[in-house]
Amino acid sequence: MITRDDAVAAAARVAGYIRRTPVVEAEPGALWLKLEFLQHSGSFKARGMFNRILAGDVPAAGVIAASGGNAGGAVAYAAQTLGLPAEVFVPVTTPPVKIEALHRRGATVVQHGNEYAEAYEAATKRAADNGALFCHAYDQIDVCAGQGTLGLELLEQVPDVDTVLIAVGGGGLMAGVAAALEGSARVVAVEPETCPTLHSALAAGAPADVEVSGVAADSLGARRVGTIAYEVAVRTGVHSLLVSDDDIVAARRALWDRYRVLVEHGTAAAYAALLTRAYTPATGERVALVLCGANTDPTRL
Amino acid sequence: MITRDDAVAAAARVAGYIRRTPVVEAEPGALWLKLEFLQHSGSFKARGMFNRILAGDVPAAGVIAASGGNAGGAVAYAAQTLGLPAEVFVPVTTPPVKIEALHRRGATVVQHGNEYAEAYEAATKRAADNGALFCHAYDQIDVCAGQGTLGLELLEQVPDVDTVLIAVGGGGLMAGVAAALEGSARVVAVEPETCPTLHSALAAGAPADVEVSGVAADSLGARRVGTIAYEVAVRTGVHSLLVSDDDIVAARRALWDRYRVLVEHGTAAAYAALLTRAYTPATGERVALVLCGANTDPTRL
Ligand SMILES: Cc1ncc(COP(=O)(O)O)c(C=O)c1O
Ligand SMILES: Cc1ncc(COP(=O)(O)O)c(C=O)c1O
Repeated sequence: MITRDDAVAAAARVAGYIRRTPVVEAEPGALWLKLEFLQHSGSFKARGMFNRILAGDVPAAGVIAASGGNAGGAVAYAAQTLGLPAEVFVPVTTPPVKIEALHRRGATVVQHGNEYAEAYEAATKRAADNGALFCHAYDQIDVCAGQGTLGLELLEQVPDVDTVLIAVGGGGLMAGVAAALEGSARVVAVEPETCPTLHSALAAGAPADVEVSGVAADSLGARRVGTIAYEVAVRTGVHSLLVSDDDIVAARRALWDRYRVLVEHGTAAAYAALLTRAYTPATGERVALVLCGANTDPTRL
Repeated sequence: MITRDDAVAAAARVAGYIRRTPVVEAEPGALWLKLEFLQHSGSFKARGMFNRILAGDVPAAGVIAASGGNAGGAVAYAAQTLGLPAEVFVPVTTPPVKIEALHRRGATVVQHGNEYAEAYEAATKRAADNGALFCHAYDQIDVCAGQGTLGLELLEQVPDVDTVLIAVGGGGLMAGVAAALEGSARVVAVEPETCPTLHSALAAGAPADVEVSGVAADSLGARRVGTIAYEVAVRTGVHSLLVSDDDIVAARRALWDRYRVLVEHGTAAAYAALLTRAYTPATGERVALVLCGANTDPTRL
């Protein structure tokens, strides 16, 4: 079980390695944006990866992860910063630009299988063989606790925040932040209709595989919500709201038009919940929106 | 003569109308980014325009400005917020997209002349005729004092800042911030080689018209530095560094690659001074970079 204490311990560990990302009061007394896309590697994932790596002893074989996306970029960044070898497993379908980005951060890239699940299998097998530290994209306590440092920061920056809107894929970010804010603020999860992992799990009473697709699948397309995330959602009463792909595209555009911030589709999902009134704040409610990543191509806004 | 007190008075006036824009510590202990592009209307110009309008009584005829760029957008935004009529004069060469943006903010747009200078002439004449409050883009004390509120904010956010890098066009931003920081921190101006208004004035010993062109001319292309800016630069010892258009383009790209912020070319000029080492901070020097505007087309990064 993950608690606020795990996030507090993580905060001490990752201090000096991660950026304290600022908050802007977008609507006076009503809406704050947590500008987490300014984080190293362009997303919050650096928090979890640094905490995972710093929480124990790393074997000579270094670290291993499976992800062509933000988790992979973050593990490569963290390993490079700490002077450790990193091996990142990705499906053969991964675009060359993502593979180059991993190479630039000094990672060894292994292309295996047509789907993420196959790359994941190969990565865990390799870690079992060579003893490297396996860094999961979302379903490890240390990873979630690292993401939770974002929640602690936010609470310092907006002490009387009532509600925090968070996009959910595998649920590691939500789990860490909900644990960090337990008893202080409510967390609301937002997912694309096309990637409803947490929503389906809450409806079914347990995590289960779902079909994923759509504009945000590159960041929110985990096929099954993590067991840690599911447990935290049930324990702390996190609900999942669904938004359409069209609404996500419009929300991404609106964030640029209104605030001149350019984020990736997965991140814009949380704002879509406000714009569509899938989430309607009460009068006087203080809402924070986590803008958690901007690894996107601006020329395709 | 503009002083810190003018900025302090402005800060009291514009409170509630402008956003307190956050700062991120980009390089620990060395570099801070002031995220002013998050300001209403997408640039710092809103500070100056609100202060100009709120500093006195506005006649029934409302406010007038000459600018198809950020000053025009800011005056339209401020007037709309305050429920005042605004007339904005622009050359007939102004792109339709900028004219629509002014219309959306409720301004009356008057297209006059082929060049900015002609639109400016017509605007001042019109203001003399109908008594409307003329809002200059940079060369009025109240406008500069409004921009100076950015400097006061920065000093609260990074109290021990040594040096602030600022892009200069007509010099209103530099003037306000240098006055606000006089005795606390040094201001360094950065200009494109293709728009060297302050640089030429300091070399010649007085403001004079210069040729302007290049990638940043839409925001930094004032043909002559303001008399207020010139006076402050001489008084407080502000130097102007020049950067090439290629360096500005590269700096804009680097701000995206490293920090996921997307700004306009004029804003990126200040970062170019660091990247090219036109400005080389001393060991231990604490530098802040003002990211002052993002009214740009992301699809053309
Ligand atoms: C930008 C962004 N937002 C949200 C998420 C979802 O995070 P989680 O899988 O922890 O739910 C991810 C995951 O990669 C991401 O990259
Ligand atoms: C984004 C941006 N940066 C810098 C400037 C230069 O400001 P000033 O004319 O006050 O020197 C401008 C002016 O329009 C601007 O819009």
